[in-house]
Amino acid sequence: MSAAAPGPPSGTRDFLPCEVRRREEAVARVKRTFALHGFEPLETPAFERLEVLSGKYGEEGDKLVFKILKRGAGAASGEADLALRYDLTVPAVRLYARRRGELPRVFKRYQIGPVWRGERPGRGRFREFMQCDVDVFGAASRLADADVILTLAAALDALGIRETVIRLNSRTALRALMDSYGIPRAGHAGAVTALDKLNKIGRPGVARELAERGIAQTAIDALCEDILGGKSVRQNSPPKAARHWEPSGPGFGEKTRKRIAATAEGAAGLAEIDAVLDAAAPRLPGGARIVFDPALARGLDYYTGPIFEFAAGGAGGSIAGGGRYDELCGMFLKRSVPVCGGSLGIERVMELLDGDGGAAEPRAYVTVWDEAAAGRALDLAAEIRAAGVAAEVDLTGGKLSRQFRSAAERGCRFAVVEGPDERAAGAVALKDLESGAQTAAPRGELAARLRRLAEARPLP
Amino acid sequence: MSAAAPGPPSGTRDFLPCEVRRREEAVARVKRTFALHGFEPLETPAFERLEVLSGKYGEEGDKLVFKILKRGAGAASGEADLALRYDLTVPAVRLYARRRGELPRVFKRYQIGPVWRGERPGRGRFREFMQCDVDVFGAASRLADADVILTLAAALDALGIRETVIRLNSRTALRALMDSYGIPRAGHAGAVTALDKLNKIGRPGVARELAERGIAQTAIDALCEDILGGKSVRQNSPPKAARHWEPSGPGFGEKTRKRIAATAEGAAGLAEIDAVLDAAAPRLPGGARIVFDPALARGLDYYTGPIFEFAAGGAGGSIAGGGRYDELCGMFLKRSVPVCGGSLGIERVMELLDGDGGAAEPRAYVTVWDEAAAGRALDLAAEIRAAGVAAEVDLTGGKLSRQFRSAAERGCRFAVVEGPDERAAGAVALKDLESGAQTAAPRGELAARLRRLAEARPLP
Repeated sequence: MSAAAPGPPSGTRDFLPCEVRRREEAVARVKRTFALHGFEPLETPAFERLEVLSGKYGEEGDKLVFKILKRGAGAASGEADLALRYDLTVPAVRLYARRRGELPRVFKRYQIGPVWRGERPGRGRFREFMQCDVDVFGAASRLADADVILTLAAALDALGIRETVIRLNSRTALRALMDSYGIPRAGHAGAVTALDKLNKIGRPGVARELAERGIAQTAIDALCEDILGGKSVRQNSPPKAARHWEPSGPGFGEKTRKRIAATAEGAAGLAEIDAVLDAAAPRLPGGARIVFDPALARGLDYYTGPIFEFAAGGAGGSIAGGGRYDELCGMFLKRSVPVCGGSLGIERVMELLDGDGGAAEPRAYVTVWDEAAAGRALDLAAEIRAAGVAAEVDLTGGKLSRQFRSAAERGCRFAVVEGPDERAAGAVALKDLESGAQTAAPRGELAARLRRLAEARPLP
Repeated sequence: MSAAAPGPPSGTRDFLPCEVRRREEAVARVKRTFALHGFEPLETPAFERLEVLSGKYGEEGDKLVFKILKRGAGAASGEADLALRYDLTVPAVRLYARRRGELPRVFKRYQIGPVWRGERPGRGRFREFMQCDVDVFGAASRLADADVILTLAAALDALGIRETVIRLNSRTALRALMDSYGIPRAGHAGAVTALDKLNKIGRPGVARELAERGIAQTAIDALCEDILGGKSVRQNSPPKAARHWEPSGPGFGEKTRKRIAATAEGAAGLAEIDAVLDAAAPRLPGGARIVFDPALARGLDYYTGPIFEFAAGGAGGSIAGGGRYDELCGMFLKRSVPVCGGSLGIERVMELLDGDGGAAEPRAYVTVWDEAAAGRALDLAAEIRAAGVAAEVDLTGGKLSRQFRSAAERGCRFAVVEGPDERAAGAVALKDLESGAQTAAPRGELAARLRRLAEARPLP
C-alpha cells in the first residue's frame, strides 16, 4: 500500500527526523566556521527573474535551469518568466550590484541553502541539493582568494573531513596555455567545457569532445600529453574511472609552467597561482594539501582568475570548488567589481561523514491516566518543559502498557505516571524507558529531577 | 546606477546580514519550542509533482501554485510537471503516506521553511514566505488538537508576542450551521471560500460573494445576522477594515450554539470545540485567549474537524492557523488517517517584533603591516579563531588608517596590529574600535585576551 503513495520528484529527497538532525549538525558546523572567518549571512529568494540567470552558466548550465511558468493571463502561453536559482553566486552578485551602497566596501558573505539543477539524477547527484557558499566582494587581493580557500578547508576540517587535496589553477594561466597550443580564443570556452568533464568522461572522452569542438588534433595531443598526463587517445581508461587527484610525475608541472610563462599573460597567471599557494599552503588544517593543476578548468563561464577544487582523499568527485569572477558584477552594474568565492556541497560531504543520524534529545512522555486526568497531564508536561526538558502528553489513550509502548516507539526516554495512588501521595511515578527502572518523585520535584537525569546521561 | 541593477522578483525579498540574523533568532526560538513539545524535524523538497498538489487547496489556492516547465524534450510543449510547494502540509502528508512504516504510529513533526504562492504582493503579503508548521499524525484525540494550539501559542510566547486571541471553530459545526440555513451541501465549499475572505473584503463583500455563488438571500441575511454580527448588506463597513477579533455581544454565541446543536452532527461539532477549549483555554501562555467563533471558516478545502486562527492583539491579519484534516492522507493512501496541525507565519510575526536586527558577534580584524607580513596576519587570525573569537584579515591593503576604516566599516570590534616594533617586542597592539583605546599584549596571550574581551562586553 505504501508503494502506491507518491514519493518526492525524481532527483529530490525527503528527510526523516534523524537525517534532518544529521544534516543540521553538519550545516551548523559549516556556518560556525564561516562566521568565525568573518563572513556574514545573506539570503536571496529561491527563484530569480529568468533574465538574471540566463547566459551566466555556460552552455551546459543554461540547459539545466528549472523554469517557472507565467501565472494568470500569461499561463496559457507556456512561457516562463522566473527560474529556480542554479547556484547561490549569481543571486548574491545581483543583490550586491543593487545594494552595495548599504554594504561595506569589502563585503564577505555566506549563504547556505538549496539550489536546483535539472541534471540526470545519479549516485550523489541530485536535482535539489544544498550549497554552502562564501564570497568576498570588493577585494582584488590574492589574500581574498586564499581566505576563501582557507575558510572552506576549515569548514571541511570542522566536519572531520581530513587530508583533502585542493587543486588550484587560474583562468589566466589556462588561457595562456590554450594560446600556446594554438587553440583560437573563440574555442576556449568550449575547450574549458570539455576539460571540465575529465572526471565524468575520462581522458579519451575529453579528447573526443575537443575534436568534436573543432580543436586541431595536434593541439589535443599536446594538451593530453602535457596536462592530462600521457598520450590519451590511444589509452583505454574507463570513462567513469576516478582521476588520480594530483598532476602526476616529477617535472610534470615544470614543463607546463615554462610553456605558460612564455607570455606576459601566462606569467601573470602563474604569479596569481603562486601568491595563493604561498598564502594558503602553510595554513591548511587537517592534513589538507594544495597543488597546482594546469588541467583544472571549472565548467562555469564566469570565472576570470584563480580557480580551485577540493577532493577528499579517495573520493572521486569534487566536494568544494570556486574561483574568482571579476566580471560577473559587470553584467548587472556596467562596471566590474573584484569578487571571489567558493562553494561546499553538503550532499557529497554527508556521504563522507560517519554516524547514522543525530540522536533526539531526551524527552519525557506524560501518560494520561484517564480522560478526566488529561488536564493534569498537560500541566505536568508544561512544568517539565519550563525546566528545559522536552515533554509530550500521550495522544494514544488506552491502558498504561499501551501508552508505554507508544512512548518507546516515539523515542521518549522517560515516562511519567500520575495515577490515583500517586496523586493521593502528591507524587508521580517516573519510569526510565531504557533501563525499565521505576522511581517515585514528589510532584513538585519532578521537573528538576528530569532535568538532572537528562543532563547526566545524554544520548550518544 | 544601483537602480539599474535588478532586484528580487516581485513579492520576494533579499535579506541583508542584520535581517538574516533577526529572522534566524526568531526561527531558532520557534524551533526550540516545537522540539520542547516533542515535535521532530522533517524536510521535503521545494517542489512536488504537479498532481500531488493539484486539487488540494480549493479553487482559490489552486490558481496560486507556481508551476515548473518540463525540461528537455518536453520544454517546447509549454507544459508543467512540477510545482513549488504551496504549503508544508500536503508534502508532509505525501511523505507520511509513503513512509509511515518507518515512523511511530503517533508521529509529531515540525517543518520550518519557505512556501510559494502567486498572490498579488502587498503589505505583509509575499510570494515567498516562511511557514513554521507542526502536525500530529495518527491521533484522533482532541488532546492532539489542543497540543497543536498550545505548541503554537508557546512559540508565539517565546517570541514575545503576548495576548493573542485564538478563534476556534469546527468544520463539523460549520457544516451543521450551513445546513440549518438551508445552504445545500454542494454550496458549502463555495460558502467557506467566501466566509474566509471576511478580513479581506468585509461583511458586505462576503454577502455579495455568497449571493454571486447562488446562496439564497434569506440564508445570507440570517448568516450575516447570526455569525457576522449584524445586518450586513446595508452596513457600510470599509472592505479593508480589520475585523473585531471576537464574536461580539453577550448571548451572541448562545443563539448560534443552539442552532448548531439542533442536529446530531452539529452537537458533535460543538463537543469537538468544547473539548479543545477545555484542554487549551486554562493553559495558554502570555495572556492568550481562545474563543469559539462560529464564523471562522479557513479557506483550505482539506479541513474536516476543529479549525483555529491566531491573531495578535491589535493586528488585523492572522499570524497562525490550522485545523484537523482527517481525509487528506486518503488522497494518497486510500484510507484516512487522523491528522491535525497548524502553521505560524514568520513574516507577520517579524512585523510584530521589536528590534532592528540581530547584532553580529564581536569580531577581530587583523591588519596587514605590509605584503611580507600577510602570512603572519593569517596565522594570528587562525590563533584568535582557535580561541573561539571570530577573526578576519585585512583585504583592503594600504595604510593602517585605511585598514582601520575598513575594519570599522565591516563592523569589527577589535583591530590587531603587529608592526616591526611590536614584532621585535614579541607583542601585538590591540585597538578597541568602539572606545578607541589601544593596549599592547604579548603575542601569545592575544587570543585569550580577545576571548575575555568578547565575553565581557557582548554587543546588545
